[in-house]
Amino acid sequence: MRLALLGGTGDIGEGLALRFGKDTDHELLIGSRDPEKARDAVADYEDALDAVDADADLKGFANEMAADRADVVILSVPPYYAGDTTEAVAEKLDADTILVTPAVGMNGDEDGMHYHPPGVGSVTELVAKRAPDAVPVVGAYHNLAAGKLADLSIEFDLDTLVVGDDADAVDTVVSLSNEIDGLRALEAGPLANAAEVESVTPLVINIAKYNDELHDVGVKWI
Amino acid sequence: MRLALLGGTGDIGEGLALRFGKDTDHELLIGSRDPEKARDAVADYEDALDAVDADADLKGFANEMAADRADVVILSVPPYYAGDTTEAVAEKLDADTILVTPAVGMNGDEDGMHYHPPGVGSVTELVAKRAPDAVPVVGAYHNLAAGKLADLSIEFDLDTLVVGDDADAVDTVVSLSNEIDGLRALEAGPLANAAEVESVTPLVINIAKYNDELHDVGVKWI
Repeated sequence: MRLALLGGTGDIGEGLALRFGKDTDHELLIGSRDPEKARDAVADYEDALDAVDADADLKGFANEMAADRADVVILSVPPYYAGDTTEAVAEKLDADTILVTPAVGMNGDEDGMHYHPPGVGSVTELVAKRAPDAVPVVGAYHNLAAGKLADLSIEFDLDTLVVGDDADAVDTVVSLSNEIDGLRALEAGPLANAAEVESVTPLVINIAKYNDELHDVGVKWI
Repeated sequence: MRLALLGGTGDIGEGLALRFGKDTDHELLIGSRDPEKARDAVADYEDALDAVDADADLKGFANEMAADRADVVILSVPPYYAGDTTEAVAEKLDADTILVTPAVGMNGDEDGMHYHPPGVGSVTELVAKRAPDAVPVVGAYHNLAAGKLADLSIEFDLDTLVVGDDADAVDTVVSLSNEIDGLRALEAGPLANAAEVESVTPLVINIAKYNDELHDVGVKWI
């Protein structure tokens, strides 16, 4: 498959690019608003993958171009860009393109991070509302430990939760996610259940803040 | 210590009574609105503990009486009784009594369970507002797998998250929780961070609903 990582130069984009690059044979299209920045990131990711003898297929593009060529488009942009980026690439998407969103709305104060969803209930549902009706939207990769993901010397055993209204699209994202070594994808129901999934993200940041022995925290459901 | 489990005849009360009974030497006061019901529960718990050769100290009381005698009062009642039960026992509590609340506000629809906090932000904070000012309130035991907890034949490896504004009370509850075999207590910050902890409870129910291999789901932060 061809996977596009829009905003693929950020934390979660980097981690997913490196892990899909190391553990799968999928073609990876790294997207950025600035294609030059995308190509620079690709050079860095290739170095990191070479260092672990992984042979990956990565290319850098502007977001629109990456989305146009992909079977699965992962919207790894900050939450306040999720809606706009969806609209910016909307005409490149169709019923055969799965749009995956990992973004979470949060705000912080001295106590820690707090879940701060948009009025529609969750960023995942916001993306679904802004995407063309025919495009299946899936929420995933919200609660990953980004640092662990992006450090290929670290082996992990973590879960990611997948939500979506289109059963085939959910199945595809679950299977795709399970191809990453140490990652297990679990389903959490339709898009209406996304808020509870997203609110784990501020929580893992709070757990890292208040427990010295835990820095880059992920989750396992057992 | 003396631990009171108010509403100790319910799911989470039963699980905590059995685990504290099996793994610690604390005196356990099982509370119920109906003291007869509390004494019946004690007889059942003693049978379950005898079956695993555990020698525990349990007694059944009306909630007010149990609260009056305890160092730690665990409010294991349904969320819609949490505020009223707090007020019902308020005059039995003081600055030396830690009030622990595991309750979570949820509602369900065909998609699954959804987090439904009271206006004050979380049930944990609601209890803190209804308790006398001097009483330290701690949130804990929100996301435990109740079935696993109450089945003494099951060994588990689960985390519980602890929130509170009183550092000594939080330390006491963390230490107490860590006395249960297989349970690890982690801190998640002040009471203002309780909502993110509570919202994991509907999520674990949704995960159980949508994944055949997972029935009574708990969580491990790693």
